[in-house]
Amino acid sequence: MKSVTSYKKIASHEAKKGEFKKCLLLYSGGLDTSTMLKWIQDEYKSEVIALTIDIGQTADDLDIIKEKAIKLGASDAVIYDAKEEFADDLLSSAIKANADYQGGYALSTPLGRVIISEIAVKMAKKYNCEVIAHGCTGKGNDQVRFEGYITTLNPKIKTIAPVREWSMGRNEQIEYARKNNIPVIQTSKSPYSYDENMWGNTGEGGEIEDPRLVPPIENILKWCKTQKQAKNESEIIDIEFKEGIPVAVNGEKMKLSKIVSKCNTIGASHGVGYFNLIEDRFVGLKVRGIYENPAAHILVSAHKKLEMLVSTREENEFKTLIDQKWAYLAYAAKWFDPVMRHIIAYQDSQNKKVTGNVQVELYKGNCTIVSLDSPYSLFDESLATFDKNSKFNQNSSAGFIEIWNLAQKTAYNSFDFKK
Amino acid sequence: MKSVTSYKKIASHEAKKGEFKKCLLLYSGGLDTSTMLKWIQDEYKSEVIALTIDIGQTADDLDIIKEKAIKLGASDAVIYDAKEEFADDLLSSAIKANADYQGGYALSTPLGRVIISEIAVKMAKKYNCEVIAHGCTGKGNDQVRFEGYITTLNPKIKTIAPVREWSMGRNEQIEYARKNNIPVIQTSKSPYSYDENMWGNTGEGGEIEDPRLVPPIENILKWCKTQKQAKNESEIIDIEFKEGIPVAVNGEKMKLSKIVSKCNTIGASHGVGYFNLIEDRFVGLKVRGIYENPAAHILVSAHKKLEMLVSTREENEFKTLIDQKWAYLAYAAKWFDPVMRHIIAYQDSQNKKVTGNVQVELYKGNCTIVSLDSPYSLFDESLATFDKNSKFNQNSSAGFIEIWNLAQKTAYNSFDFKK
Amino acid sequence: MKSVTSYKKIASHEAKKGEFKKCLLLYSGGLDTSTMLKWIQDEYKSEVIALTIDIGQTADDLDIIKEKAIKLGASDAVIYDAKEEFADDLLSSAIKANADYQGGYALSTPLGRVIISEIAVKMAKKYNCEVIAHGCTGKGNDQVRFEGYITTLNPKIKTIAPVREWSMGRNEQIEYARKNNIPVIQTSKSPYSYDENMWGNTGEGGEIEDPRLVPPIENILKWCKTQKQAKNESEIIDIEFKEGIPVAVNGEKMKLSKIVSKCNTIGASHGVGYFNLIEDRFVGLKVRGIYENPAAHILVSAHKKLEMLVSTREENEFKTLIDQKWAYLAYAAKWFDPVMRHIIAYQDSQNKKVTGNVQVELYKGNCTIVSLDSPYSLFDESLATFDKNSKFNQNSSAGFIEIWNLAQKTAYNSFDFKK
Amino acid sequence: MKSVTSYKKIASHEAKKGEFKKCLLLYSGGLDTSTMLKWIQDEYKSEVIALTIDIGQTADDLDIIKEKAIKLGASDAVIYDAKEEFADDLLSSAIKANADYQGGYALSTPLGRVIISEIAVKMAKKYNCEVIAHGCTGKGNDQVRFEGYITTLNPKIKTIAPVREWSMGRNEQIEYARKNNIPVIQTSKSPYSYDENMWGNTGEGGEIEDPRLVPPIENILKWCKTQKQAKNESEIIDIEFKEGIPVAVNGEKMKLSKIVSKCNTIGASHGVGYFNLIEDRFVGLKVRGIYENPAAHILVSAHKKLEMLVSTREENEFKTLIDQKWAYLAYAAKWFDPVMRHIIAYQDSQNKKVTGNVQVELYKGNCTIVSLDSPYSLFDESLATFDKNSKFNQNSSAGFIEIWNLAQKTAYNSFDFKK
Repeated sequence: MKSVTSYKKIASHEAKKGEFKKCLLLYSGGLDTSTMLKWIQDEYKSEVIALTIDIGQTADDLDIIKEKAIKLGASDAVIYDAKEEFADDLLSSAIKANADYQGGYALSTPLGRVIISEIAVKMAKKYNCEVIAHGCTGKGNDQVRFEGYITTLNPKIKTIAPVREWSMGRNEQIEYARKNNIPVIQTSKSPYSYDENMWGNTGEGGEIEDPRLVPPIENILKWCKTQKQAKNESEIIDIEFKEGIPVAVNGEKMKLSKIVSKCNTIGASHGVGYFNLIEDRFVGLKVRGIYENPAAHILVSAHKKLEMLVSTREENEFKTLIDQKWAYLAYAAKWFDPVMRHIIAYQDSQNKKVTGNVQVELYKGNCTIVSLDSPYSLFDESLATFDKNSKFNQNSSAGFIEIWNLAQKTAYNSFDFKK
Repeated sequence: MKSVTSYKKIASHEAKKGEFKKCLLLYSGGLDTSTMLKWIQDEYKSEVIALTIDIGQTADDLDIIKEKAIKLGASDAVIYDAKEEFADDLLSSAIKANADYQGGYALSTPLGRVIISEIAVKMAKKYNCEVIAHGCTGKGNDQVRFEGYITTLNPKIKTIAPVREWSMGRNEQIEYARKNNIPVIQTSKSPYSYDENMWGNTGEGGEIEDPRLVPPIENILKWCKTQKQAKNESEIIDIEFKEGIPVAVNGEKMKLSKIVSKCNTIGASHGVGYFNLIEDRFVGLKVRGIYENPAAHILVSAHKKLEMLVSTREENEFKTLIDQKWAYLAYAAKWFDPVMRHIIAYQDSQNKKVTGNVQVELYKGNCTIVSLDSPYSLFDESLATFDKNSKFNQNSSAGFIEIWNLAQKTAYNSFDFKK
Repeated sequence: MKSVTSYKKIASHEAKKGEFKKCLLLYSGGLDTSTMLKWIQDEYKSEVIALTIDIGQTADDLDIIKEKAIKLGASDAVIYDAKEEFADDLLSSAIKANADYQGGYALSTPLGRVIISEIAVKMAKKYNCEVIAHGCTGKGNDQVRFEGYITTLNPKIKTIAPVREWSMGRNEQIEYARKNNIPVIQTSKSPYSYDENMWGNTGEGGEIEDPRLVPPIENILKWCKTQKQAKNESEIIDIEFKEGIPVAVNGEKMKLSKIVSKCNTIGASHGVGYFNLIEDRFVGLKVRGIYENPAAHILVSAHKKLEMLVSTREENEFKTLIDQKWAYLAYAAKWFDPVMRHIIAYQDSQNKKVTGNVQVELYKGNCTIVSLDSPYSLFDESLATFDKNSKFNQNSSAGFIEIWNLAQKTAYNSFDFKK
Repeated sequence: MKSVTSYKKIASHEAKKGEFKKCLLLYSGGLDTSTMLKWIQDEYKSEVIALTIDIGQTADDLDIIKEKAIKLGASDAVIYDAKEEFADDLLSSAIKANADYQGGYALSTPLGRVIISEIAVKMAKKYNCEVIAHGCTGKGNDQVRFEGYITTLNPKIKTIAPVREWSMGRNEQIEYARKNNIPVIQTSKSPYSYDENMWGNTGEGGEIEDPRLVPPIENILKWCKTQKQAKNESEIIDIEFKEGIPVAVNGEKMKLSKIVSKCNTIGASHGVGYFNLIEDRFVGLKVRGIYENPAAHILVSAHKKLEMLVSTREENEFKTLIDQKWAYLAYAAKWFDPVMRHIIAYQDSQNKKVTGNVQVELYKGNCTIVSLDSPYSLFDESLATFDKNSKFNQNSSAGFIEIWNLAQKTAYNSFDFKK
């Protein structure tokens, strides 16, 4: 293949030809990263280690992926099961943070990038790789996450981003693949591309992107029934939380990764947890995407209501702000900025009391919290045993009103904004 | 009736016996305010003017209410149609503010209290009333709103709150009503009480209040079909906005009050816009309520997405915070604190560009924004004519990444939080 | 004395006559609380235990205070040295929070009220007192703090606030004191009243209150030299911090309470740390006060700069907001709202790295941080050993600029606000 | 000169050789921009128009600068007096915003960059220049401001940043200047570099940068006396504000630009308004600088206190947050992001009532607001005529306390964080 590219490497963390001999490639087994596996060997004369991390994405058999990598020349192919790590380290934080970027996005991809980067850096060290290659394009958020996180976790490692630097269009890439015996499966005529892990599936491309077009949702969804296809019967599930973390579904104790998986299945059957969002990429673009995240939607909704039940108005107001900051930082590739540690310390402190049971009704796209119970509920203090006199004293109200209102009354009568 | 009460008046704005001769009563025509109408005459030896304000609540014939007031001894009975004022002055602000208190409450009651207080103060002046009486209890937010707003708008006016001060239980009240020829219609055995205006209906009482109980929603709703009762066909409606305000539905131009009314009807038929919420009263209590507000839900959802389409990430992030403050203040009886003027100035500034069309799909409780169009859309700048070179320049990405990440990398490697 | 008062008790936590037999009085030894000591015995026929808590206020000999209490009829008189508790539990948090309410007030009084309430509740239990009496008036913040905190910490305890309920004016009080052999020392003609503890002294009254008058500062200050009276020589002191807490001054390790005391002495001699502030009481009033807090000013200034040195821009921006919330809550009698626990968890997390030395120059009212050193300094990453390539790469700048600016450019050219 | 540079242009807005024929150079008359004037002609074979904008910086005679530009080959040299525009458009906003980045920096340089960019874009159009050249280095904030603002205001214009791209070190540059008859005045051995306009002077370099070193302030300051050199007499000045803007000093009405100039002179003589700050550059670096801004310090301090006097606690708390956002955006090259318009709308709304007089005492570095007067003062509502009963009603306090404290009490007794 003729390598004519106008791309110029200028960043310090971009590895250049001749600078390295061993590269760790984040390998999915698909066409793009298979092409890279070959291309890096050709272009950089570098050995390649393929690393495939399982964080719950729908994927081919992992053994087959491994075999494929070896066949394409990888000097080694590593499969890493990170499902529990992902759930315990990242998704538990997402739940405590009521993960929501810009109105519903539970941040599946941004959180996935954190755990992948951490494991990649560890594996790069183990296999003596000087460089990590990722498969992201040059116009999205994910390149920023991978390159930012990797160089933060280990500033000695450099990165390459083949899609950003190679000059191949789609046809050239397919031709290149054919020439190099890379299997090109025309899986479908689908114009959509997806990114998946157990916390969600995101779809882009085609009619999805233009906000003026009504997306043909029945063609796009991979996990969920549409609201119209969903079961006709509603279903109530019971989720038990302990210190902010789901620990059981319908009374059955499970690991968090299993709870997520189970809620994905149940939610999807009810058409719950998919939506479209015009997302503000922090590289300055707007793009509409389709998101499917039944478990995230159910668990975050349930958590949020339980948290509110055990928290004061002051706590609830400020938590909104804390959570918004968490989401903006997680989205914007700032997971390792120390500010995140403090935000998480805040969230952990409040979640110490987020313990109890939540009943969630699922019905044709709707996810309704129908009942809540907690030993630390702040509802109806008159039932609490600590104070026999806790019945609300109505005689205190007028005094409260007078003082609560004093500043407003004074100010309103001191200056007339309408004049 | 024997007036044995342990209530002690201590606030400056509470009118005492003998201090006034003419009282304006906020009169709904129901049992409570009818009882008051009589009771104030008896207890305070004061003339009473009955004021009934129409802000779109479901109500008996207003002429009948007027007649009833006169029959019970009101020296005058005033009916005031405030539907358009309410929509134009308050609901327009609510829409621009994406009104949402604690996860979905569009603030129908708190906003209604503002317009009622304004009109009551004007009418009190017109009819030379020294005192305004309201029907709220002594343990809720509404007494704070009425007494706070009234004394702010005119510090010379005092208030009375008969329910707070009289000592009658339910049975005594009915006996009192019977003795005084006040019609006692046992409308239903319903344990629920409601507050209504065109922006929403709120239900309280019975199983609603305890968060541990699943509310029997089909017995509670007054406006909406349940999700299960709703039509089987989905419906897409088109809402046109101009500078943040809805101006047309399905291409038909209408006044805002009509748009609200129309959206209530359509939404209710699809089971859209009802929910339960455990609300933090700012008097320190938690109470669960059932809220029905189809129009508010549809119009705020549509507005929010359109606003996000025409706004930058910076604008969208900060607006969330501004809107949250608006909601907390509107809820907490601070509408006339000057801080509200500035928040509204902020919202008005951003809304100058919130112009365009929104398509909303309604289906069995779901309200989905399926398409958005605006002349000021920030989607796909490459289509914009101002810059032929606006195609995203991927070669800038690595430089962006290096600098965007510099502080994170430095900080992460300077201190180890895990140690 | 004839007890004619129009005050009506309506709050649940206010103890009434006949309801209690043993009262704990927060006793300073001054005229007001001495009068109370007697008055409570007379008026409530209750035994009184006098409690005097030392949190570093300038005071008479504590043994003399004790003796005085006994002489006035106290059944017991307890002296409690809380200086170290106050410093370690409250002031350490204030330093980490860069304590500042509305532009300079380090919250000496509000923080003092927390520790006093905690100790009072403990002592009330120990001495079987059902009621705690405090000496605050009915128009300030402190009554809210005492009564709020005490009933929060132990809802079974009630309170009385004699000044709020008795009807004595100044002359009547003095007459009452004379009749009851309470020493009335006309200490001075000073129109000012003070509240003191080691964290600060606040003065009110006379010309201080009206913001239009230039306060005669030389007559008002109790601790500090004025700027003009201060030494002519500047002085540089070195403060060492460990995890956010000062641990040494000029190389000498000391307990925090000693460091505060030392910094008060040094700062006062340089006219550092006094100021006037028009404070927004949360009961709705504005009042100007004079504050003297040399140690607070020096330690908070030093801490803040050191914290900024070791923190990223993201951390520094968000900390400002966190600290503002801390100050508003601490001021507004919300120390025990659980939201405070989470805010403190946030501050503790960030302060783990606030370790190092700060040099502070003091000169005629000025307090200047002249040098900072920390093992975790984020200054000049090029010196750090973790990355030989850390020299700033200027070639990345233009790429950063293009992407950083993309949204702004797009938005600016999409809508013209001036039209 | 041999042009060996490794700099690679990759951003879309960077003009390349051969792409343009006429360049507008932001010309100060100093060595750097004089070198550029020549270098651009040599390197790019482009005509150069020199533009010198007067925003109050200390500078050589402007006619001499103009002459010098022509002598070095500029095809035209434009002098633009923007002092009043700068004051009226930018500094008025800074005052209303209580301009403060990270603890004292009133943002002189960032605000100067806005007005310079606006004028440069206008002049580029007038003189048909396709490109604008600025003199900033590649590791600071100012390149981001110039390139961001210029391409936002007119996306057709490109930029060049000679210092970033040329490969000359200091000696090479001087050699180049000598060869090209560019006057090289060794003004001093000063290691410091400055940026100046009427709103402030910033110094960098040498001992200033390292926070561990005590800066030899007496060698660094250009405008101010040191605190020790300052007059021994204090001076009180009276500043009159109208709707947030200073309109008179000591009773004499003046344009804002004159007020700034006058306050600079007075403040500097008292050693007021200089300080050091370790600033978080938004390109990810920390750098200490020395700032001199007597007028900014005096006017912002006076404004802030007056604003607080006429505003409620709610207004004051939220304004802090609004102002912080203003400062972060102004600093971070986001002046033209529409979010700024809304923030300014907020600030303008609040400032409608910021009218009155402020007395400021200046003494040896101290700037103390000693008195405040405003027709809209919220101090002492009991003097206000609107309500004869406005004396604070102490009998309302206990009721207020009970309800204000209810949530705290309930929550504290529901969950024990210490367990």
